[in-house]
Parts: sequence; structure tokens; C-alpha cells
Amino acid sequence: MKPVGILGGMGPEATILLMQKMLGMVDAHDDADHIPLIVHQNPQVPSRIKALIEGQGEDPGPTLTRMAQDLQQAGAQAIAMPCNTAHYYAPAVVAGSTVPFLNMLDLTAAHLAKSGAKRIGMLASPATRMVGVFNKPFAAHGLTPVWLPQDEALLTIIRAIKAGEPAASQITPLSKIAQDLLDLGADHLLIACTELSLLTNAIPEGIPYTDSLECLTHAIAKFATS
Amino acid sequence: MKPVGILGGMGPEATILLMQKMLGMVDAHDDADHIPLIVHQNPQVPSRIKALIEGQGEDPGPTLTRMAQDLQQAGAQAIAMPCNTAHYYAPAVVAGSTVPFLNMLDLTAAHLAKSGAKRIGMLASPATRMVGVFNKPFAAHGLTPVWLPQDEALLTIIRAIKAGEPAASQITPLSKIAQDLLDLGADHLLIACTELSLLTNAIPEGIPYTDSLECLTHAIAKFATS
Repeated sequence: MKPVGILGGMGPEATILLMQKMLGMVDAHDDADHIPLIVHQNPQVPSRIKALIEGQGEDPGPTLTRMAQDLQQAGAQAIAMPCNTAHYYAPAVVAGSTVPFLNMLDLTAAHLAKSGAKRIGMLASPATRMVGVFNKPFAAHGLTPVWLPQDEALLTIIRAIKAGEPAASQITPLSKIAQDLLDLGADHLLIACTELSLLTNAIPEGIPYTDSLECLTHAIAKFATS
Repeated sequence: MKPVGILGGMGPEATILLMQKMLGMVDAHDDADHIPLIVHQNPQVPSRIKALIEGQGEDPGPTLTRMAQDLQQAGAQAIAMPCNTAHYYAPAVVAGSTVPFLNMLDLTAAHLAKSGAKRIGMLASPATRMVGVFNKPFAAHGLTPVWLPQDEALLTIIRAIKAGEPAASQITPLSKIAQDLLDLGADHLLIACTELSLLTNAIPEGIPYTDSLECLTHAIAKFATS
């Protein structure tokens, strides 16, 4: 199998969740059945929220370029990044290595289009909305994002998870936001923040949803075993 | 902070447990408070059980040497290996890199001696017993290991965890083994297999125990923040 490099630490808990999902998707009989990864668990990547929302602080781009180089040097044969917002810096990642970049946003848009979804309720960081990282992938697949008119509450939830609050404490506020998006006409919900991937049980029963981290997980397994 | 390289995948779930323990020990307010790691999650390291117990199969040493080199190339400033049995190959790891190796077994023996423990009930893989990796560290600290006369049951538990059985299903058999070790005169129990680190609640109430993975976790944090 081919090891995939993970640009991790954004946040560190979401990176661990990706690794758990990689384990969970394999019907293993022994260690050797699992997918090899090389994980740069770097919680010191400069804050994407600070750089993109607050317009201050260090540019995360050069750090991500260096991390991609590190991973390739260590033997990674593709690179993946389990952070939606950080895909704003995808060009810096691609510049940093000569191996394929498994773009989570492109993979997610392709999956959504295949599922027949049209109007996508965005459970995402305000930073993701502000920098428009989903605009191109969505346009390429005829998808329309549905954003909350006021999304500070989402940022509050994401910050709580990053600060180590138990996920369970954030289920009720996220459920309310999910309902608001449905009321705004979304026909499908998208978990487009890997912190929120820890909270999938906040999605109301019976509502179709996609978790971008799941799309990435499948792409990593497909690459590693191909 | 200084990133520590992790020789992981032995097994992959134990590696994730180490990463979770690293998160849990930091009182974080944001991502950046956490410890940086570079994790070689390589489930394809040749089986230590096959090589050491069954005396067949590929030698894991050269793979571990190469992984240590990979991690150093990626920027790791020390190396740690969350697998007790694999410390048999510590010389191969040390040969593979020029950065410090945080030896989990030495760290554990030092911790046990400091706690006043004398006769250590070994919750470990039979491979760990057969290759005697704890002999030197224990002798250096005046510790006596207490081994089960028959330890196939421990191997059955470890194999079940590696095959993805839920940890809860292994609590009862491990509790029985823990009691057997106390009956044999152990004054302290040692979880000396990172698969068994998933099962600490099998230790009978009130019995002092140490988990070697915890000793490693603390050493990693100390190195990274020093």
C-alpha cells in the first residue's frame, strides 16, 4: 500500500478523527490490513481563523508548504489535508510537493453532485464562507451553497471544540443551526468543518447529509490501495 | 515546541491512543497549545509476534530503521515508539537516526522504581516476555517481574484488539489475569502492551498500576516543551 501524508493539527482532534475513520473503514484481521499514513500533527500551523477572519497574524501558507515537503521526504506518495478552511492554502501545499494532492473540497463537491443534492446547507466556519473556498468546486458541479445570514454561532461551536469542550455540549446549538439551514431551503446538509465532524449526531433524523471528512477518508483509502 | 517522531502502526489503534493521551494532558485554549508530533502510522511493519514468537516472517528491524530516518527527515527532533515488544528493535531505531530515542521501557522502569513498586505483575505480550526486553531496565532499578506461568490468554486478548474486537469484550478475561498476577505476589501491575492500554478499566479497583504508554506520553511532552 502507498502511504498518504496528512497535513494535520488543524485541529489535532480532527486529525485523530480522520485516523480513526481510516481504521474503521477497514475490515481488519491484523494490523497489516490498515492504511499507512504519515501524519504531520502540527497544532502550531498559524491560525486560519486569525489570518482569514481577523486579517492578522502569520500567514499559514509557508508552514503548509514546508509540511508538505516534510511529508514527501518521509515517503508520502500523496498529500491530504483534513481542514476545509485551510484549502484556501491548497496552492501553497501543491507548490510544496510533487505528489498528488487529494483535494477534499473537489472530492466533496463531486460526491454531492452524484448524490443528487442541489442546495447545500453549509455547516462550516465563517472563514470558509468568507474566503469562498467552496465556490469553484460547487460551481463546477452545479451546486448552490445555503449559508446562514448570521454565522457567529457556528464559530462559537468550533472554538469550543478547539478549546477542548466535550462534543456533547455542542449538539443542541448545532442541531438548531442545522434546522435553520433546512428552513432556508437546503435539501442536503454539508459538514464542511472537521471540528464539526465530531458532531454528526446533531443532524436531525432522516435529513440527508455529507461529511467532507468522510469523502476524504474514502479517497485516501482508494489511493493507498490502488 | 519540538516535534517528536512516532514509530506507529504497532498497532494503529494504540498509536491513536497515544495521540489522544497527548491531547488530553494539555489544558488547551486553542490548537496551538498542543504538542507537535510526526506520526509514521505504518501498520505494515512486519509482525513482531510472527518474528519473535513464531520465529518466522520478515525482520521488522530494517523497516523501523527506515521509518526513524523518514521521521528525522520530516523534522522530528526525537523518536518514540508506542509498542513495548518492538523495543527489542530499539538498536535498529537508534541506528536509523541521530536524534534522541525516548525509550519507553527505561522510562517505565524509572517511574516504577520511584513509585516504590518491587514485584511487577506483567500485563504484556508473551513476545515481550520471551525476548526479555524488560530484563535490563528492571534489573537497573531493582524491580522483579511477575509473569503468568501460562500467558496464551494474554495473546488471545491482544490479537482480539488487533482484529478490531470492541475493547469492552476483553475486560473480563483481562481482569481475571490481573487477579492471577496479584495472587502470584505482584505488588503493582504494569500494562506493558499498548493494545492493553485500551483496557485499563480491567485493573481491579484500588490496585496500583502503571501504563508504560503513560510514561512515554509524559516524556514526549517534557521533551517537546523543553
